[in-house]
Amino acid sequence: MRIVLLLTFLLVSTPFFSQTEDEKQIKAIYDEALTNGKAYDWLNYLSNQIGGRLSGSVQAQHAVEYTKEQLDSLGLDKVWLQPVMVPKWVRGVPEFAYFETKPGLTTNVPICALGGSVSTPAGGLKASVVEVKGIEDLEKLGRDKIAGKIVFYNRPMDPTLINTFSAYSGCVDQRYSGAAEAGKYGAVGVIVRSMNLRLDDYPHTGSMGYGDTPVNQRIPAAAISTNGAELLSTTLKLNPDAKFYFKQNCKQLDDVQSYNVIGEITGSTYPNEIMVVGGHLDSWDLGDGSHDDGAGCVQSMDVLRLLKETGYKPKRTLRVVLFMNEENGMRGGNKYAEVARNKNEEHVFALESDSGGFTPRGFSIDASAENVEQIQGWRDLFEPYLIHMFYEGGSGADIGPLKEEGMVLAGLRPDTQRYFDHHHAENDTFEHVNKRELELGAATMASLVYLIDKYGTIPTKKIKG
Amino acid sequence: MRIVLLLTFLLVSTPFFSQTEDEKQIKAIYDEALTNGKAYDWLNYLSNQIGGRLSGSVQAQHAVEYTKEQLDSLGLDKVWLQPVMVPKWVRGVPEFAYFETKPGLTTNVPICALGGSVSTPAGGLKASVVEVKGIEDLEKLGRDKIAGKIVFYNRPMDPTLINTFSAYSGCVDQRYSGAAEAGKYGAVGVIVRSMNLRLDDYPHTGSMGYGDTPVNQRIPAAAISTNGAELLSTTLKLNPDAKFYFKQNCKQLDDVQSYNVIGEITGSTYPNEIMVVGGHLDSWDLGDGSHDDGAGCVQSMDVLRLLKETGYKPKRTLRVVLFMNEENGMRGGNKYAEVARNKNEEHVFALESDSGGFTPRGFSIDASAENVEQIQGWRDLFEPYLIHMFYEGGSGADIGPLKEEGMVLAGLRPDTQRYFDHHHAENDTFEHVNKRELELGAATMASLVYLIDKYGTIPTKKIKG
Ligand SMILES: [Zn+2]
Ligand SMILES: [Zn+2]
Repeated sequence: MRIVLLLTFLLVSTPFFSQTEDEKQIKAIYDEALTNGKAYDWLNYLSNQIGGRLSGSVQAQHAVEYTKEQLDSLGLDKVWLQPVMVPKWVRGVPEFAYFETKPGLTTNVPICALGGSVSTPAGGLKASVVEVKGIEDLEKLGRDKIAGKIVFYNRPMDPTLINTFSAYSGCVDQRYSGAAEAGKYGAVGVIVRSMNLRLDDYPHTGSMGYGDTPVNQRIPAAAISTNGAELLSTTLKLNPDAKFYFKQNCKQLDDVQSYNVIGEITGSTYPNEIMVVGGHLDSWDLGDGSHDDGAGCVQSMDVLRLLKETGYKPKRTLRVVLFMNEENGMRGGNKYAEVARNKNEEHVFALESDSGGFTPRGFSIDASAENVEQIQGWRDLFEPYLIHMFYEGGSGADIGPLKEEGMVLAGLRPDTQRYFDHHHAENDTFEHVNKRELELGAATMASLVYLIDKYGTIPTKKIKG
Repeated sequence: MRIVLLLTFLLVSTPFFSQTEDEKQIKAIYDEALTNGKAYDWLNYLSNQIGGRLSGSVQAQHAVEYTKEQLDSLGLDKVWLQPVMVPKWVRGVPEFAYFETKPGLTTNVPICALGGSVSTPAGGLKASVVEVKGIEDLEKLGRDKIAGKIVFYNRPMDPTLINTFSAYSGCVDQRYSGAAEAGKYGAVGVIVRSMNLRLDDYPHTGSMGYGDTPVNQRIPAAAISTNGAELLSTTLKLNPDAKFYFKQNCKQLDDVQSYNVIGEITGSTYPNEIMVVGGHLDSWDLGDGSHDDGAGCVQSMDVLRLLKETGYKPKRTLRVVLFMNEENGMRGGNKYAEVARNKNEEHVFALESDSGGFTPRGFSIDASAENVEQIQGWRDLFEPYLIHMFYEGGSGADIGPLKEEGMVLAGLRPDTQRYFDHHHAENDTFEHVNKRELELGAATMASLVYLIDKYGTIPTKKIKG
């Protein structure tokens, strides 16, 4: 039945034939991912044999070696390590915190140092607490009410935002800049409500920065679990004089040598036009970094394998790049872009997966209107795989520095509802990644790479100097 | 800015105004669900205080009482219990199984009796094994190769099917009819590979039936975990004479009294036109039935609360129905439809949630083309909530018996990738339900109910007698 139809249309309609070839190739990609996908096994090793991979750690180095070795085994045209110096921050011994409503009457709460924070004094730090809903509150309170105290940032993520990344964006300034800003008013430390939409006992770490705060004026910053934040807030309402104690001995060491891991299938027709798929190989240290971003790494690795196994030879050069140090420095992404510019490499397309290994829903596309429209025109090809979202928006932190006019950048967009339950916390672990969801993401990425390679991107008229 | 636009368009375009009113109402529903949703708390109680709710069990009765009490507290117009007699099957002591490659050399494997199965002899049952890929293989093998043996049904779910329910449909005949069919060839028992797409150690139960097999010819049936199935299959290849032993003492008791739980908001304008939202209150006994179908019950309950809280008064009568005995008898669904017919009630719409409490993706709609089209016309209203699927298809087992020409039936369709990891197994438990995903499902259901109520369904020309 199918063959008869095909023959009838073949004579009158090449687009129909071409559509069918695309349908077949994309089906082959999904079938291969769901039956012989490698992503889950790779992730198992990264998560359970290596674990959390903070930049500069032994684990990060193991991850570099392991992923290079796995890429070597795929029979790509080239695999190499790209050197990059990375910051090394270490957490030290586990943090400890409590609040005290009367001398001697204390309640422990789960905290963790924010990445990049200084330590507390060796004996810890105890002070009164001033709760705020954000940095904006500091000015209203003024130095009088803040100096000598611990500032407790407690603005929760907005549960009514359907895309949880929007809720994250709306809160994360507290974590990133909270200490630098509170320090200006004489605060002695900050405690930040974890960036988590649900109530639980996990503190969530993440990067923070001191801006131009002189080293001797930097104050320690920690995240408190959402349950801890609720409890502390209630306690402060009943007992505004309650004191908070915390102790952490994290520190920033000298930069160390690390690497981006890169594998390449050289383009058969346009080897100088480069397409990148990637994720970041580093992770925070509390969990094993399965969703953030072990998932994105192993999906990106599998994209090359999926195309190879389904017999598709890219016309353009296709690289998988596992970027180092996204979490606390972005050194890998910046280095890759710097080297590309120095070598005058032409990158036409880059796709990052760094939003968790959940069921893929679509892509966010950072490109010219023509390119966005071209990708949206492939919607029907993705419909059988329940990929519905093709909207204009950001792509990924690591590929951002590659951005140039005419280039197409995209980010895989999976379901976001569970992501912040795990993000940067002790429970970002392998058992929370579902094999099929991970594989569907890899296949979705490979399918877009296939279409971009086959049809090309639409170049913008460049204004040449 | 918004107000100015509104005023401008108000004069020329009522559809625009009406669209905006819909947008506002739907946003209010989602906001309420995501900030004050009750579904998760109710599910917590059903799952963690009551637990698995097999028809006829004490837990099922507790669930009836608890949900009635909760509906009573919502200030609905009516709440009642609808009596229905249900079958009572009990598992008895935990099942036990091993295979034996040489006398005395045994390996234990996890099994569970299938719902409705007879027990093994008191001392268990030991026999050689014949592995098949499905019922079709029985005829090819013939009585000679089957008589006196245990038939091992080992066709896995097809991983390439994107909708995992399709993969389930493609396999579940082994579970439901495997024993009745194998019995015809003289088999003494059947072991069925669990309906699970991943490899793990949980056996998955589920209903089976003996058809017209005389009572004294019924053979016991159990499910084996997917890892167990793989191991058994490998063992049989190396050692075709391996024997399988299993012991279970489940049994079917007399029917007992139970209830559908029903709550109603009586319609303000068309009280005789009835809309139903529901799920099934019974579950299997191995886990706590959180996804199947505690989720659907608490979402359905919250639909009425969400409409109430957002100030929407339905023109039509809206009922939540928590059906008893979907899993092993369908008595609740049949009883509800029977009573409705006896009372000449006119049901215009029914919506069931019975596919897990995962992120909602859309609806499957069983209705006339005009009604499917009308619902698809509301697509843009659902787009902000990432609800993209509005396809023609089945609705739900419990509401199926209500079906009449002109009626609109629908099923909530959440993400399906993880569902069969938990379905009918010990790990269908509360911690695998995400609060936001559950709440988004409730809001999605309430939004469709709102639109159906506001715009009505499109009646088919009925051929009257
Ligand atoms: Zn990340
Ligand atoms: Zn069910």
